[in-house]
Amino acid sequence: MSDAEALDAADPLAHFRERFALPEGVIYLDGNSLGALPKASVARLAETVSDEWGRGLITSWNAARWVEAPQRIGDKIARLIGAGAGEVIACDSTSVNLFKLLTAALSLNPGRGTILSERGNFPTDVYMMQGIETLTRGAVRAKLVEPENIEAALDDDVAVLLLTQVHYKTGRMHDVAAITARAHAGGALVIWDLSHSAGAVPVDLAAAKADFAVGCGYKYLNGGPGAPAWLYVAKRHQDRVRPALSGWFGHARPFDFTDEYEPAAGIARFLCGTPPVLGLTALECGVDMMIEADMAALRAKSLALGELFATRMAPLCEQYGFALASPADPAVRGSQISYTHRDAYAIMQALIARGVIGDFRAPDILRFGLTPLYLRFADVDRAVTILAEMMASRDWDRPEHRIRAAVT
Amino acid sequence: MSDAEALDAADPLAHFRERFALPEGVIYLDGNSLGALPKASVARLAETVSDEWGRGLITSWNAARWVEAPQRIGDKIARLIGAGAGEVIACDSTSVNLFKLLTAALSLNPGRGTILSERGNFPTDVYMMQGIETLTRGAVRAKLVEPENIEAALDDDVAVLLLTQVHYKTGRMHDVAAITARAHAGGALVIWDLSHSAGAVPVDLAAAKADFAVGCGYKYLNGGPGAPAWLYVAKRHQDRVRPALSGWFGHARPFDFTDEYEPAAGIARFLCGTPPVLGLTALECGVDMMIEADMAALRAKSLALGELFATRMAPLCEQYGFALASPADPAVRGSQISYTHRDAYAIMQALIARGVIGDFRAPDILRFGLTPLYLRFADVDRAVTILAEMMASRDWDRPEHRIRAAVT
Repeated sequence: MSDAEALDAADPLAHFRERFALPEGVIYLDGNSLGALPKASVARLAETVSDEWGRGLITSWNAARWVEAPQRIGDKIARLIGAGAGEVIACDSTSVNLFKLLTAALSLNPGRGTILSERGNFPTDVYMMQGIETLTRGAVRAKLVEPENIEAALDDDVAVLLLTQVHYKTGRMHDVAAITARAHAGGALVIWDLSHSAGAVPVDLAAAKADFAVGCGYKYLNGGPGAPAWLYVAKRHQDRVRPALSGWFGHARPFDFTDEYEPAAGIARFLCGTPPVLGLTALECGVDMMIEADMAALRAKSLALGELFATRMAPLCEQYGFALASPADPAVRGSQISYTHRDAYAIMQALIARGVIGDFRAPDILRFGLTPLYLRFADVDRAVTILAEMMASRDWDRPEHRIRAAVT
Repeated sequence: MSDAEALDAADPLAHFRERFALPEGVIYLDGNSLGALPKASVARLAETVSDEWGRGLITSWNAARWVEAPQRIGDKIARLIGAGAGEVIACDSTSVNLFKLLTAALSLNPGRGTILSERGNFPTDVYMMQGIETLTRGAVRAKLVEPENIEAALDDDVAVLLLTQVHYKTGRMHDVAAITARAHAGGALVIWDLSHSAGAVPVDLAAAKADFAVGCGYKYLNGGPGAPAWLYVAKRHQDRVRPALSGWFGHARPFDFTDEYEPAAGIARFLCGTPPVLGLTALECGVDMMIEADMAALRAKSLALGELFATRMAPLCEQYGFALASPADPAVRGSQISYTHRDAYAIMQALIARGVIGDFRAPDILRFGLTPLYLRFADVDRAVTILAEMMASRDWDRPEHRIRAAVT
């Protein structure tokens, strides 16, 4: 038995893998971009479509409890991030939810006009900040600083600090509790983007006294392509916010059809339009499986997968010019590992053609997602073996691997 | 052969009905709230889930053309509303799209500060206006007037007029071209909410020189519960708008992952987050069927269905106190017909219990949607017969019919 096989044999999470519909001959190291398909989602979606929509029609909003789905799923996600019931709701996209929370935070900190983030944060986070700058004609300023200068930039004009806990390219992790405390001490509120955290690393928003958070449904939560996202608002803030995106599903009594917006009590006011039922159905299947898993066991396996990957990659770094782009210390690394290489794009395309699916992130990063629910140690071992063979043969260096696709 | 049967025998759209999965024993007069399930959607969704997501995983963004879906579906919807290719995009909810277009219109009319609409417009339209008032701390004002006073209210502070063409309660239709011309003459831009128009009544946005429009995917387009919505921006305005909801999918080069938002050329800049693939898949099935139907034939059948319904209802109005809430003139009525009754809620609940599904709209409206693709004249005939029998027996008047559900 190889080392990897021994690790698989001892893996307490190994039984989850058979509950995913994974394609033959593929090693999937991109679950941090699009999570794999839970087998339960196939049947559940078919039921939602044929029975609930087809037969139940409009009555399914009540009978199939579609109307409660955003709150119900939100309460389940809350358990993955140390939030309480009624603090999380599933809705819209991460981008739209960022807008909701940025405007909410600004309204709670009215004397201040700066939104602070770090350079190289995930683009949509930064772009949504810049959209508010445009919208307010510069009254609110979007400010980006280098990661090491965040603390120094927390001056008395910063209304809100927006950071992503686990960096999408490198996996570098911020200390949520420490940074939140520093921002609060300086009078700023904080929004945490947990897109690469929820279901991937332990998060405790309550312990961190967090204000706001958003996250993605289609990565580690396995909610399907373009799944609804979610947002978190600490109970203490909820009823103080009058939402800017004040749609009818966030109204106190949407079916009274009145002319005056009156926000619903609690987290429901952060809904906007009609909930996307098909997307929520798939998201709930993914979340249901994730909350079955023990987060400490998930993190332990994630670290062990990363350790195996890094150990196997070390000679390739030496020989072919890969360099670790993630923190060397696994304690501050999320559930992924990344390497730079001058020819990262072509190498990743060639690797994908061999059935090892990771992804490329501009300009030069090969990113490998480590998803403990469905990834085996033997998969990681085999992935690096395939990469090593490919590099030795130089067979990756072909023109067709250099043609960029629309989504990379 | 009854009159209704004769009408069905001569109906050129009759063949569409068998392409919907309609439940036995139900007459569905609520397709203007949630459209019925196209049979094609069942297989197509299963394929998207099992093959594209399950087997294709991340590669399906390109291989299954997920990334093009918002534009591709938008171009199809454009054909239903007299818009050109590249003027419509499918995304987000109607509410979120209203926010995008309201802020766009305000930015194109910077010297003015009023958003005008009519009292009793669909609530989310009004609430989104009020959200902008909140967001701008009153710098932008949301103003509502009675429908008959719209023209008089178009003063030189009105930046944008937001109206729904077909009223959700009564089906009353505005004249898109005439009102747009009057608003333009007064220096205002116009947003048309076509939620109850697209796929229901003929619309010609190009002829009306329309600026902006939004619409819903889950009503007459049969896109499924909470389907993605869509928005229209006239070509002449597109590149002049810097979107307020500036997410990464609206960026000129989203996969360059830069720190600076640069809007995509054309309609794509009105995307925000990652497209909701499952919802878009179902929406496309619905739209594909709708564009097969001839719009003139759809309107003719819709008018004939309404005529039959009104004729059969006339004696019930006399005898039981129903009153037509829709315009008597079918030329200014959308694809629905509504009646008021003091006991509207309980009557509708009792009718639904008998398999005739319409809906109730507060405070006293019974609303019946007429969807020519899958409704037969015999269905309309039978629905009124059931209502007449129920009223005669007084069997509707039971306590359980007076208990309000969450969604009505």
